[in-house]
Amino acid sequence: MKIAILGGTGPQGQGLALRFASAGVPVVLGSRDAQRAAEIAAELNAQLALPESLIEGQDNLGAVAAANEIVMLAVPYSAHDATLRSIKPLLGGKILVDLVVPLMEGDPKRVAMPVEGSATEAAQALLGEEIPVVGALHNVSAATLKHLEKAINCDILVCGNDLEAKNKVIELIKQLDVQAYNAGPAESARCIEAITPILIRLNISKAVPFTHAGIRIWAPGS
Amino acid sequence: MKIAILGGTGPQGQGLALRFASAGVPVVLGSRDAQRAAEIAAELNAQLALPESLIEGQDNLGAVAAANEIVMLAVPYSAHDATLRSIKPLLGGKILVDLVVPLMEGDPKRVAMPVEGSATEAAQALLGEEIPVVGALHNVSAATLKHLEKAINCDILVCGNDLEAKNKVIELIKQLDVQAYNAGPAESARCIEAITPILIRLNISKAVPFTHAGIRIWAPGS
Repeated sequence: MKIAILGGTGPQGQGLALRFASAGVPVVLGSRDAQRAAEIAAELNAQLALPESLIEGQDNLGAVAAANEIVMLAVPYSAHDATLRSIKPLLGGKILVDLVVPLMEGDPKRVAMPVEGSATEAAQALLGEEIPVVGALHNVSAATLKHLEKAINCDILVCGNDLEAKNKVIELIKQLDVQAYNAGPAESARCIEAITPILIRLNISKAVPFTHAGIRIWAPGS
Repeated sequence: MKIAILGGTGPQGQGLALRFASAGVPVVLGSRDAQRAAEIAAELNAQLALPESLIEGQDNLGAVAAANEIVMLAVPYSAHDATLRSIKPLLGGKILVDLVVPLMEGDPKRVAMPVEGSATEAAQALLGEEIPVVGALHNVSAATLKHLEKAINCDILVCGNDLEAKNKVIELIKQLDVQAYNAGPAESARCIEAITPILIRLNISKAVPFTHAGIRIWAPGS
């Protein structure tokens, strides 16, 4: 199983590549710039120093083509729709995992949701029902991902309208030693994506003693 | 400081009354039926067996009039707007704390948000800017509240457009020995209210080993 991470040269993409490769999952970073993707991949492989280099870099289309099944979209929101349109012809038989949070331009403490309700719903509308879209990994900070010596400090809420696709993504994410929960249909992304700016607000606030907050599902006895 | 809890005879209202009274905060339960409010108050006082009875019951208008400053609205969503309209003339100088989650009729695993975006925003629009509305305590289950021998298992996300009012509510909630965080403006209620049906979904799911899930803000080292 080889996964693609588009926007893979950004902080979150790099952090996820490190985590997945550490868990033994081969990753193709996708970028508009294939050269830059290859350079970042080489840096990340050097950082990991695994017996085998599990991270490679390609342009976005090459990365999608190289992925067996799962394509993660971790681009800035401003590139969300255009990237999806460009890769749509290559997504047949694959699952699009949407990590994008529609942060408000100029104010990352707020969302500016698309008319569809959320980025995940917008992606599903754009790709059509044939290509399952799963929303996940919105609330885990890049800094948290990059500190490989520490466990990831949050749970992952996963949503989407296709249960089989959602379960595959949940199983993949669990390889990162985190809990991942089925949080319902794509519509739940309206909530899940909007958790990120609340966490950003807490991280910025001087009232709170932490800088890379995540959320956890908690229950009596857990 | 005496607080009112409207819808106080429901499970969440009763649970909150027990917790606040245990923390030494006097509570007036409000209900459409003053007689029932008084009966429930007597039952809760008997359960607490404190030296002084801190819980009383009145009709909704009487409860609002009796509250010094903070009026909590914990009615079912179907009664949200009508209750607010009936108490509006008595809310001058007070803070309305909105706990209501617009769960979808017939499917508590989904929200059906009002056109304003959330119940909190709808309340603020209905009451006008003179009366500050603070959204809080949406995600704590009645069962969790009623088990007084156990600490509350979640953090409280608090939102609203009036910072002073929000800080007063945060201080009040912290008396329950829980963390309460400023999660931003009233708009954040679109996210916070929608967390509840996700928790309900997890509680119902057989895939998850708990029945009264809450959320926590978590960070490295916490």
